[in-house]
Amino acid sequence: MTRLTVLYGHPTDPAEFDRYYRDVHIPLAKQMRGLKGWTIGKCESAAPGERPSYYMIVGLYADSRADLEAILASPEGQATVADVDNFATGGATFFYDDEQVLVSLSLPSVG
Amino acid sequence: MTRLTVLYGHPTDPAEFDRYYRDVHIPLAKQMRGLKGWTIGKCESAAPGERPSYYMIVGLYADSRADLEAILASPEGQATVADVDNFATGGATFFYDDEQVLVSLSLPSVG
Repeated sequence: MTRLTVLYGHPTDPAEFDRYYRDVHIPLAKQMRGLKGWTIGKCESAAPGERPSYYMIVGLYADSRADLEAILASPEGQATVADVDNFATGGATFFYDDEQVLVSLSLPSVG
Repeated sequence: MTRLTVLYGHPTDPAEFDRYYRDVHIPLAKQMRGLKGWTIGKCESAAPGERPSYYMIVGLYADSRADLEAILASPEGQATVADVDNFATGGATFFYDDEQVLVSLSLPSVG
């Protein structure tokens, strides 16, 4: 399983980032067809009182990097990628990895 | 599901990092009891020809942050955490997140 990780830096206005991501970006990204998984999580520092290195971590999954790149190259994918500049005021770092599972996961689906 | 993400920076000797992680760190970390999931992946740049921001991304999963912190506070967890300094020559960034699944995953287990 190949994953595209997106690490969002701390936005200038976190509440507005959250609103835009929920109300605009998720509905837009849900138009993409073919994703095998999509996870999001707000980062919390491992050390008490420190700000975490990133604001949010997102994982997009497909069977291969070629599949993920094809999804992002579709019209719906292009619209989703282009939308990132509209809210990612703290920047966004992207990288792929070929995720290996050393201990098997059992993640709940939240729809 | 709570995840602890570890982002390893580029090591000074990638082959030695890989050897140590596989032969020493994984067997040590496998002594920890209670993890609900553990994934690793080598990072690849999203842009051709660029070096990715990190060398490797690791995810450790448990039902809650308290559970994860208890695992890391166990003698086996402490030994695993202490071992990171022995091979992470490019540094390591840690943060927690409470992972939400927007599109359900079906990840294969590789043992």
